[in-house]
Amino acid sequence: MNKKAVPPYIGAAYYPELWPAEEVAADIQKMHDAGVNCVRVGEFAWARMEPEEGKFDFDWLKEVLDAMQAAGIAVILCTPTATPPKWLTDRYPETLRMYSNGKRAQFGGRCHVCKTSPVMREKNRIISQKLAEALGRHPAVIGWQLDNEIFHYDDGCFCPLCAAGFQSYLEKKYRTIEVLNRSWCTGRWSLTYRSFADVIPPRHDTWNHASLFVEWIRFQDETIISYIREQAEAIRPYTDAPIGTDMMVPLELSHEKMNADLDVVQINHYERAEQLADTAFLYDHLRPLKERPFWCTETQAGWNGSFFAANGPRPQGNCYVNTWLPIAKGGEMNEYWLWRAHPSGHELAHGAVLSTAGRPYEVAGEIRRAADDFAACRAFLKNTKVRSDIAVHCSATAALNYRFAPMAEGFDYRERLLRDFWAPFKHYNVDLIETSHPLEGYKVVFSPYLSTLEGDLKERILRWVEEGGTWIVGPMSDCMTDYAAKYTDAPYSCLEEIAGVYTRYQYLLPDPAIAAQFEDGSPLTLSLCYDAYELRGAAALATYTAGRFAGFTAVAERCIGAGRVIVLGGVPDADSLRALAGVLPVAAASDNVMLVSRSGEGIEGVIAIETENERGFVELEGVYEDVVTRARAAGRLELAPYSVTVLRKVEED
Amino acid sequence: MNKKAVPPYIGAAYYPELWPAEEVAADIQKMHDAGVNCVRVGEFAWARMEPEEGKFDFDWLKEVLDAMQAAGIAVILCTPTATPPKWLTDRYPETLRMYSNGKRAQFGGRCHVCKTSPVMREKNRIISQKLAEALGRHPAVIGWQLDNEIFHYDDGCFCPLCAAGFQSYLEKKYRTIEVLNRSWCTGRWSLTYRSFADVIPPRHDTWNHASLFVEWIRFQDETIISYIREQAEAIRPYTDAPIGTDMMVPLELSHEKMNADLDVVQINHYERAEQLADTAFLYDHLRPLKERPFWCTETQAGWNGSFFAANGPRPQGNCYVNTWLPIAKGGEMNEYWLWRAHPSGHELAHGAVLSTAGRPYEVAGEIRRAADDFAACRAFLKNTKVRSDIAVHCSATAALNYRFAPMAEGFDYRERLLRDFWAPFKHYNVDLIETSHPLEGYKVVFSPYLSTLEGDLKERILRWVEEGGTWIVGPMSDCMTDYAAKYTDAPYSCLEEIAGVYTRYQYLLPDPAIAAQFEDGSPLTLSLCYDAYELRGAAALATYTAGRFAGFTAVAERCIGAGRVIVLGGVPDADSLRALAGVLPVAAASDNVMLVSRSGEGIEGVIAIETENERGFVELEGVYEDVVTRARAAGRLELAPYSVTVLRKVEED
Amino acid sequence: MNKKAVPPYIGAAYYPELWPAEEVAADIQKMHDAGVNCVRVGEFAWARMEPEEGKFDFDWLKEVLDAMQAAGIAVILCTPTATPPKWLTDRYPETLRMYSNGKRAQFGGRCHVCKTSPVMREKNRIISQKLAEALGRHPAVIGWQLDNEIFHYDDGCFCPLCAAGFQSYLEKKYRTIEVLNRSWCTGRWSLTYRSFADVIPPRHDTWNHASLFVEWIRFQDETIISYIREQAEAIRPYTDAPIGTDMMVPLELSHEKMNADLDVVQINHYERAEQLADTAFLYDHLRPLKERPFWCTETQAGWNGSFFAANGPRPQGNCYVNTWLPIAKGGEMNEYWLWRAHPSGHELAHGAVLSTAGRPYEVAGEIRRAADDFAACRAFLKNTKVRSDIAVHCSATAALNYRFAPMAEGFDYRERLLRDFWAPFKHYNVDLIETSHPLEGYKVVFSPYLSTLEGDLKERILRWVEEGGTWIVGPMSDCMTDYAAKYTDAPYSCLEEIAGVYTRYQYLLPDPAIAAQFEDGSPLTLSLCYDAYELRGAAALATYTAGRFAGFTAVAERCIGAGRVIVLGGVPDADSLRALAGVLPVAAASDNVMLVSRSGEGIEGVIAIETENERGFVELEGVYEDVVTRARAAGRLELAPYSVTVLRKVEED
Repeated sequence: MNKKAVPPYIGAAYYPELWPAEEVAADIQKMHDAGVNCVRVGEFAWARMEPEEGKFDFDWLKEVLDAMQAAGIAVILCTPTATPPKWLTDRYPETLRMYSNGKRAQFGGRCHVCKTSPVMREKNRIISQKLAEALGRHPAVIGWQLDNEIFHYDDGCFCPLCAAGFQSYLEKKYRTIEVLNRSWCTGRWSLTYRSFADVIPPRHDTWNHASLFVEWIRFQDETIISYIREQAEAIRPYTDAPIGTDMMVPLELSHEKMNADLDVVQINHYERAEQLADTAFLYDHLRPLKERPFWCTETQAGWNGSFFAANGPRPQGNCYVNTWLPIAKGGEMNEYWLWRAHPSGHELAHGAVLSTAGRPYEVAGEIRRAADDFAACRAFLKNTKVRSDIAVHCSATAALNYRFAPMAEGFDYRERLLRDFWAPFKHYNVDLIETSHPLEGYKVVFSPYLSTLEGDLKERILRWVEEGGTWIVGPMSDCMTDYAAKYTDAPYSCLEEIAGVYTRYQYLLPDPAIAAQFEDGSPLTLSLCYDAYELRGAAALATYTAGRFAGFTAVAERCIGAGRVIVLGGVPDADSLRALAGVLPVAAASDNVMLVSRSGEGIEGVIAIETENERGFVELEGVYEDVVTRARAAGRLELAPYSVTVLRKVEED
Repeated sequence: MNKKAVPPYIGAAYYPELWPAEEVAADIQKMHDAGVNCVRVGEFAWARMEPEEGKFDFDWLKEVLDAMQAAGIAVILCTPTATPPKWLTDRYPETLRMYSNGKRAQFGGRCHVCKTSPVMREKNRIISQKLAEALGRHPAVIGWQLDNEIFHYDDGCFCPLCAAGFQSYLEKKYRTIEVLNRSWCTGRWSLTYRSFADVIPPRHDTWNHASLFVEWIRFQDETIISYIREQAEAIRPYTDAPIGTDMMVPLELSHEKMNADLDVVQINHYERAEQLADTAFLYDHLRPLKERPFWCTETQAGWNGSFFAANGPRPQGNCYVNTWLPIAKGGEMNEYWLWRAHPSGHELAHGAVLSTAGRPYEVAGEIRRAADDFAACRAFLKNTKVRSDIAVHCSATAALNYRFAPMAEGFDYRERLLRDFWAPFKHYNVDLIETSHPLEGYKVVFSPYLSTLEGDLKERILRWVEEGGTWIVGPMSDCMTDYAAKYTDAPYSCLEEIAGVYTRYQYLLPDPAIAAQFEDGSPLTLSLCYDAYELRGAAALATYTAGRFAGFTAVAERCIGAGRVIVLGGVPDADSLRALAGVLPVAAASDNVMLVSRSGEGIEGVIAIETENERGFVELEGVYEDVVTRARAAGRLELAPYSVTVLRKVEED
Repeated sequence: MNKKAVPPYIGAAYYPELWPAEEVAADIQKMHDAGVNCVRVGEFAWARMEPEEGKFDFDWLKEVLDAMQAAGIAVILCTPTATPPKWLTDRYPETLRMYSNGKRAQFGGRCHVCKTSPVMREKNRIISQKLAEALGRHPAVIGWQLDNEIFHYDDGCFCPLCAAGFQSYLEKKYRTIEVLNRSWCTGRWSLTYRSFADVIPPRHDTWNHASLFVEWIRFQDETIISYIREQAEAIRPYTDAPIGTDMMVPLELSHEKMNADLDVVQINHYERAEQLADTAFLYDHLRPLKERPFWCTETQAGWNGSFFAANGPRPQGNCYVNTWLPIAKGGEMNEYWLWRAHPSGHELAHGAVLSTAGRPYEVAGEIRRAADDFAACRAFLKNTKVRSDIAVHCSATAALNYRFAPMAEGFDYRERLLRDFWAPFKHYNVDLIETSHPLEGYKVVFSPYLSTLEGDLKERILRWVEEGGTWIVGPMSDCMTDYAAKYTDAPYSCLEEIAGVYTRYQYLLPDPAIAAQFEDGSPLTLSLCYDAYELRGAAALATYTAGRFAGFTAVAERCIGAGRVIVLGGVPDADSLRALAGVLPVAAASDNVMLVSRSGEGIEGVIAIETENERGFVELEGVYEDVVTRARAAGRLELAPYSVTVLRKVEED
C-alpha cells in the first residue's frame, strides 16, 4: 500500500510522542482505512526530541515517518518551538514571555516565549536544524510547519529586551525623536519624549496613546516575522519540502508579510459549526498570497473544547462541507485537529476524529466521504484555478489601526469587512487582497475601512483606474496614517481630491440604517457611518433622503480616464453594493449556496456548496457534468442540505 | 431558670467581645425570652483572648459562659484561628496566605492564613489548648467548633512552603516522576518533569494542566484536614464535648474525609430564601456521615449581606421552615447567624435576630414558634431516625475532577446532582453518600456523574448487586482517574464490561432533551449528554427515537446475581428516573411538599414540609396524630404555605 | 474687534501647544466667527511650559493670549499639573501614584500623580507660580483653573507617604488608638490595632472594613483639597482673576469643602445626550455654594469618546439646550470640550466644535444660536438670580458612607437623590445644599439618605423648624456616624426622639412599591426601604395598607414650635412628595419642561426649557415678554422641542 500521497491532502494532527508504539501502529492503520493521506507530527515534542540540553533523539520519530510512508501517508513535519522543555526555561528564564504586569509567564502552557530573546532564537535554531538534518529529506515529508499559531498574545512580551527592541524599531522608522513627537502629537498631555529611550511599552493598566499601542504591536509582529524567518533559514539547507507557519484568523499579524519569505501559506481556524460559510473569508484572503495552493493545517472535526466541549458538535454533514471548503476555494489541504483525543491535560475535551479510546467519532464517516470525492475530482481540481474579477482590500494595517482607534463603538474591522463587503458576494469569485497586491486583472476593487493608503497604492490604483478599473472606496478609508493619526487639513489624505467631493459633515453612530436614493429614484440604505458630501467635480450617485444629512450626497462617482472612482459615504445595503460593482455572478443561486468558479486550460466549472443545512439551488447556464456522479446537469439544479456539487462545463447553453 | 438545654438546639452566633457587659447581660436575657437554648461564641476573638503574644485572657469569656449557663443556654465554643491578631501576622508574615500572583494576603479580612505554615499551626495549637484548658469543661459547653468555614479559597496558598508540600504530596502518591509523567501524559506540550521539584503550583494567569489543578487542590484539602485535626488534638485532652468544624456548601473539600477524625458534623449555609427546598440536599449528604446527628451551625435569619442587604429578606414564614429543615432531616441543631447585627465593619448589613440597636426583627417570632414546636416534638424526634432505601453517590473526587475537567460546557457537578438526581426524590428518604459509605441496607444506589470508581467501590458494589441491589449508574461515571485522566482503551474503566454494552458514540451538548422510548413504547427524554450503546450482553431498556443516535440503545440493563445494573446513556426525565428506581415514595403529595419518613423502636411518622409558600397536600395511608396540635389526621391532608406538619402514625389504614 | 468679553461666557477648551502658529491664528478667527467669547488654555501643556527642569517658556502662550485678546475672547488659564513631563516622573518616581497592588502608575496617562508627595507639590507650586508671574495679569485672563478633574481615582494613591499621611490623619481625628478601636468595633475579626501605625491602606484585593474604606477616601480627599489650595496660594499674589478647579460629577469629593478657599465653582460633566435634564441636578447643587455664579468648564459638544465615539451624537437641538442649562440655572459660563478634535492619541474620537481638519461640526450652529440668545438676554440674566423655597440636603459624607456601606443592594446615593427627591421638582426652584449651608429663607428642607447629622446641623435645623420650617427627613437618614458605624441603642441617633416615633421594624428590599394611604384615605406608595413606626408623640400622616407592615405608620408628623418635622419611612411617590412639601410650583407645565424662576430688583421672569425633544407647554399666570423675540406671552404657551424660552414678567394676571 506504499502509494505516494497526492493532493488534495486530507488528514489530521497526530502526537505519536504520547502513545506506545503498538498504539501508534494501530492509529496509522486506522488513518489509512479512513482515507487520510497526510498527517502533521512533531508540533510540541521538543522534550522528546531533546530530553536534555544538547542530547537529541529523532529515532522514534523516524520510525513513525517510516510507518507513515509505508501506509502511503504524507507527513508535515513541525518544529516544536512553541513548547520549550522545562530544562530550557529553567536555565534561561529570559525565554519566558513577560506580561505587561512585569511577571514572567509560568511554565505549563504553550506559545509563551519571548520572541526577542537571543537565547530562545538560538535554541530554536538548533532544534530546528537538528530535526531537519535528521528527517528533512525523509520521503514521507511533503512540508514543514514552523512553531505553532504564533501571535502577539496579550499584546506580546514586555521584557527589557523587547522594550529595547521597540525603541530601536521606532528609531529606524521615525529617525529622530522630534519626528516621532510631531507625528504622534505628544505635546498633548505633556507626553513629549526626550529620546527614544523614553518610549516604554504600553502597560495594560494604563490609558495609553493609540499610536503607541499600534507601533508596539507592529514591532511585536515584525519580531515574530523575523523569528519565523530564522527558523526557515535553519531548515532550508536540509530539505526540499515547502516551509510555512500555521497562522490564525486575526488579520493584524499580516499574512502577506509573514508569508513573504515562506513557501506555503498555512492557516488554522476553529470557527464554530454555524460559521461554516464565513470560514471561506479566510480562504479568499489566503489564495491570492501565493501561486502555490494554501494549506488548511488545522480545523475542528467535531467541536471545540479545552476542559469542556464548547460550541456544540458539528451537525451531521457540516464536517463534510468544512472539509471541502478550502479545496473548493483553491487550497490543496484540509487537516483536522486532532486525529485522536488526548488522554488528559489541556484540551482533553476537544473534538477529534477518534476518541481517546481510539474509537471513530461520527465525523470519521464524513471525512471518508470527502476523501472519496477528492479522488473523483482530482484531475478537475488540479487543472483549474479560482480567478476573480472583484478584489476587496484586506489590510493588516487597517486591522491594527482600527483595533486601537476603532472610531465607532464596537467596530471590528474583520467582522465588518466580512459581513458588509465580502458576504454579499457569495455567488462571485472574490479575492481579499493586501494593498501590496497587483491590481491587474481585476475589474472592480473595493477599499472599505482601508484606514491607510500605504506605499504607492494611491499611484497604482489611479493608474489602474485610468486603464478602466472601477475603484469603490470607503467608508472609513484613507483617514489615518499607519500609526492611527488623523489628517489635519481634511478628513482624508487625498480622497476628496481624487473623488471630487468635499466632506461637509461626518458622524458615526450605531443607529438603524438611513434611507437614501439613487439618481433614478430607486432606494438604498446606508449604515454605520455617514459622510455628507458636497460635489466638487464628482457626480452624485445617491443622496440621503432622511436623517440630519437629508439632501447631501451619500455616494459620489468620478470618471478618471477609462475608469471611475466611487466614494461611499456609508455602508450600502448588499443589493446596492452589488449594483455598484456591476459585475455578473458565477450563476444565480439561492442565498444559502456559495458558488466558486474554477477555470484552466480548456476546462471550466463551478462548485456549488450548501452551507446552511437547507435545500438550495443553482441556475446553470450551459450544460455541466457532475464530476463525482458523472450525471449531466443543466438549468435549475436542486442542491441537498450540506452538499458540495462539482460541475464541469461540457457545453455552452 | 438554670434548666439544662437539650436537643433540638436552636440559637445563633454571638460576639460578646464586641459589647459592654451590660449589653451582654441584656442580650442573654433576650435570648432566653426568645426560646434560644444554644449559642456559638469565641469564633473570631483571638485578639481579645491573646491581646499580646503569650498573654491570655479568658476571664471575660468565662463570665459570659456563666451567664449563659445561668440562663439555661448551652454554648458551642469556637477556636478563633480564622482571624489571627495583628501582632501575629506582623511578627510572622509567612502565616498570611500567598495569592497565586505572589502577593501575601493583607491583614484586615479573615480565613486568609497559610495552612502549611508551621508557625501558624503552632500558634493555633497554643490558643486552642489555652482556650480548652480555661473553659473546656465549663458546664455550658456542649461542643466545639474549630476555625471557621475553612476552605481552599482562591485555590489556596501559593507560598514556597505550600509548593514544597505539594511536591512531597505528589511524590508520596506517584512515587517516581516517571509515573507522574506517564499518568498525566506530560509528553504533551513538552511538559515532561525531570523531578518532583519541577512541579510548580498552577498560577491563575496560566493555562495549566487539568491534572495539575486537581492534584493541587487535593493537596490543599489534605493540608486543611490535617490543620483541623491538629486543633482537635490540642483540645481533646481538656474537654468531653464533641468537636467539629463548620464547613460550607461546596463538595470539593470532602465532608467525609474532614469529619473522619472529628466528632460532630457541622454545616454553614447561606442559601437564599428561594433555595429553601434545595437546602435539604446538604442535610441528606451530612446525615449519613455519622450516627451522631449533624449540626447546622450557621444559616441566615433574614437576609444575606455584607455592606448591603442582598438576596432580599426571607418572606414571612420562610425562616420558620428553614429552622425546622435540619431537624426534620435528622440533625439536632439550627443556629442562625447572627444574634445581633454588628455596629460597623464587614457584614454590617447582614440580617440577624436582633438589629444592631438590640430590637427584634420579625424573624424572632418565627424562631420562637419553631422553638415551641421543638419542645412539643422532642420525644418524637429523639426516638426516631431518618432511614433511606435509596442512596445517591455524592463524591468529592467527582466534584474536583468536574471542576477542572467539566467536559460539558457549564457543567456544575453539585448543581446537576441536586437538580437531576436528588430533586426528583423529594417525597422519598434519600441518602447522598460518599463512595466509601457501606451499601448494605439500600435497595437502589444511583451513581450519576461519578467520574471515578475509587478504592474497592467496584468490588463492593458488584457484591451488593449480586445480593439483590439495583445499581443505576451514569451518565458521565467511571470515565476518569482521580486526577482527571481519561482511559485509552474504552470510554470507561469497567462500565462497558459490567453493564454488557459497547459505546459506539458519545457526545455532550447543551441542546433540548432528545426523545427516546422504553421497550413498552412509553416515551422518555434524555438530556445533557448522550451515549449510543450497542448491546453486548445487556438488554435495552430505552432506545433513542430521534436525533443522530436514533435506533441506538440509550438505557441498558443487565442482571447480575439477584440484582441488576442499569446504565444511563444520558439524564432521564424525573418521571422516568423514579420509574427506573422502582421504589415507593413516603406518600403521595403535591410537588411543593417535601416528605421525610422517620422511624424508631415501635414508632414511626412523617414530617411534611411546605417549602414554596403555597398550599399543598399529602395523601396519608393510615391514621396519624399531629404531634404539635394533637389532632388526628388521615387521608388527604391540606397543608398551609410554609407549614411543617409532624405526624406520628397511630394505626395502619 | 477688541471688545471685552462679558458674561454669559460661551466657548471651548483649546490646546494651542498642539498646533502650528498659522493654525492657531485661523482657529481663533473661527472662534470669533462662531460666537465664542471665552476659551480655556494651558491645561496639559507642562512639557511646553517647562521643557527641561527649571527652564520655562511662556512666550508662545502669551502670543496666543494676545491674539485672543485682540479677538475679544476671554481666557481661563489652566495650571498644567495633571500631566507632569517625562523628566519629572523619571527624576522623581515617587510623584507617580501607587496602585493598591503596589505598582506605580505608568507615564503615559494623566491625573496619575501622588497628591501627598512633597516633591510633586513643590514642582506644582513652581510651575503654577511661574505661569502666574508670566501671564497672571494679562488682560485676556478672566479666571484660573487649577489642575484637571482632580479626584481619588481608583481610591487614590497607596504609596508609603500616603500610608503615613493616613495614619496622621486618623490620629488627629481619633486621638488615641483605643478610641479608633472602639469606634470601628475592631474587636470583630480580631482587627484590634495596637497603634495608628497598624492601620494600613485598604487594598482592593482584600475584604476590608467599611470604616477603613470611608476614612481612607476621606483622607485622600482632604489631601486633594490641600493640594489644590497650595496651587491657589502660589498663584494668588500674581493675579486678580478668580481661581477655581474643574471638578466632576461624583459627590464624594465635597464640592463645598473643595471650594471653601477658592473663588469660583467649576464643573466638568460628560452626561449623555439623553441625560440632558439630569444635568441640571449638578447646577442646583453648585449654585448655592457661592454668591459668584458657577462656571461649567467642560461638557461634550457632539458625543463622548476616547478611541471610539460613544453614547451617540447629540440629536439636533440638544447641544443648544445643553448650552443654555447652566446659564438658566444661575451659572455664567458654558465651555465645550473641545474646540478642535485631536489629531491622534487618547480621545481622538471625541466630539468637538471643529473636526481635526478644522471643519465645523453641526453643533457649531447650535452654539452660535445660543450665543445670540445670550446677547439678547444679557441684561435679564445679569439683573436676576435663582432663589429657592425648597432645599434638599446633598452631602459628601452621605455619598461616601453609602458608597462603602450602601445597606440596600444597588443603592447609589447620587442616583437615588436625583431620581427620588430632585426630579419630582422640575417645575420648582430647588437648592441642593450641603449640610453646612444656612437654612434661613427656605420654607421646606428635605433630608433624604442623609446618613449623618454632622456638626451642629441638628441644633440649627430644630431652631429653623421652631421658627416655622418644614423638615422632611428620611428615609435612611441619621443612621450612621461619619465613618459608617451604626448606633447601638436605636436605629437613629436622634430622629425617633425628634419625630416622636418608635421604629418597630425596618427592612430594605428591591421589591415593587408598597401601598399605603394618607389619613384622608387617599393612596400613596412607598419604595426602596421601609420603617414601621409606632407613634410616641407624632401624628400618623400615612399608614401601610399592604405588605408585612400593614397597619404600621409609614409617614409621621410632629409639630415643633411654628414648624413641623415629617419623617419618611420609605420613598413616597412623586405626587405624594410634592403634596408633603406643600409649596406651589413656578407654574403649571408639561412633564417634559423644566422651569426656572428668576428674580431681581423690580424684575422677575421664568425660563422654560424643553429637554425631551418633544412639544410641551407652560401655563403662565400674568403677562410676559419673550426676551429674545420680544413677543408677548400669556396663558398657555406652546413650547417647541428642545426650546429655551426666556420670559420677563410685564404685568400681573
